[in-house]
Amino acid sequence: MDTIRIIEVKQSVFASNDKRAAELRNELKEKKTFLLNVMSSPGSGKTTTLSRLINLLKEEFKIGVMEADIDSDVDARTVSTNTGVEAIQLHTGGMCHLDADMTRQGIESLADDHYDLIILENVGNLVCPAEFDTGAVKNMCILSVPEGDDKPLKYPLMFEVANFVLINKIDVLPYFDFDMAKCKENIRYRNPQADIFEICSKDGRGIEEVAEYIRQLIYDWKR
Amino acid sequence: MDTIRIIEVKQSVFASNDKRAAELRNELKEKKTFLLNVMSSPGSGKTTTLSRLINLLKEEFKIGVMEADIDSDVDARTVSTNTGVEAIQLHTGGMCHLDADMTRQGIESLADDHYDLIILENVGNLVCPAEFDTGAVKNMCILSVPEGDDKPLKYPLMFEVANFVLINKIDVLPYFDFDMAKCKENIRYRNPQADIFEICSKDGRGIEEVAEYIRQLIYDWKR
Repeated sequence: MDTIRIIEVKQSVFASNDKRAAELRNELKEKKTFLLNVMSSPGSGKTTTLSRLINLLKEEFKIGVMEADIDSDVDARTVSTNTGVEAIQLHTGGMCHLDADMTRQGIESLADDHYDLIILENVGNLVCPAEFDTGAVKNMCILSVPEGDDKPLKYPLMFEVANFVLINKIDVLPYFDFDMAKCKENIRYRNPQADIFEICSKDGRGIEEVAEYIRQLIYDWKR
Repeated sequence: MDTIRIIEVKQSVFASNDKRAAELRNELKEKKTFLLNVMSSPGSGKTTTLSRLINLLKEEFKIGVMEADIDSDVDARTVSTNTGVEAIQLHTGGMCHLDADMTRQGIESLADDHYDLIILENVGNLVCPAEFDTGAVKNMCILSVPEGDDKPLKYPLMFEVANFVLINKIDVLPYFDFDMAKCKENIRYRNPQADIFEICSKDGRGIEEVAEYIRQLIYDWKR
């Protein structure tokens, strides 16, 4: 377990982030590498969900994982232990988000030349990561039941930039005032095109459907 | 309920924030006004907790509330309905935090000249708000059980700047893998001086102790 590599990433002061993100995405297209950017609040279950998804996809695809964290290597260790795939930790040195250059630094630090799927677990934050295009092909957002069904109203940009949303921790629905229909309505108010999945990363409910959905996204990208 | 005022606040490009925050704090000291800055992740229960605290303190103290929100007025309406005290909404226009000047704009927008206690509910975010001194006398951080006991390790600065921490949603402890002793240990690892309270904003457990604690802080400040 002492093999987790920690990469210190720094925000670039050059060029516009959107341009750099588009360049990175073009290069990934040529390499047939699908980059998935995963965003959520702290504690909504990004790492557990990713571990389950990776275990369903790792036989078919070569996968690399980049875990953004301000100051720990907890997540990269967890993913590495749970899945056996390569996971590196990106230290942001206090930064609240990742931009395209920081993402590129991470990708270039992965051990191999080719990956079918690179997963970026962004900093746990419903605000800032949504403002910076990382160069990812798709953005996945996780919202967990304990956070409340009103979050899409209060954090608009996150739900506008999410291509698909996982509503996690459905096992605790009985213990919270959470209206699932209202939550979906709030997500679609921000983003009518968003695909929405109900999951429980703890017991695995709904994860297979998400894995199949991501599998299709990867095939579409490689075409 | 159409009386909620919405204030558009803008980040100042002048001077250093720390200097501006210190100036604001000095003015508040002269006025004998205690400013409490409340920070947490999205959905950890800031608004519900504040409503309960305000109802315990409003007979004794003149209270004003500023609710920072990116793009809604949900929280100010909730506080105003639940407590009857003056609550205004500060729109940050996408900004992920409040600084001292934005806080000052909010305070100057409150209706009266004197308040014993002004509460600032910051943007729901465990990263950026911790980086900006708002001019508050004390910082209160809320961490809820569903978020996980490891959050102080992953969001160091938030717990370093918190003067006291409320661990909320203890009613759902049986449904989560949350180690209370470990959580407190993690908080104290970041901040040995932090006072910690266990609460449930839903049923009110622990709230009276926090109200008493804040009452003492206000008296100390007014001396």
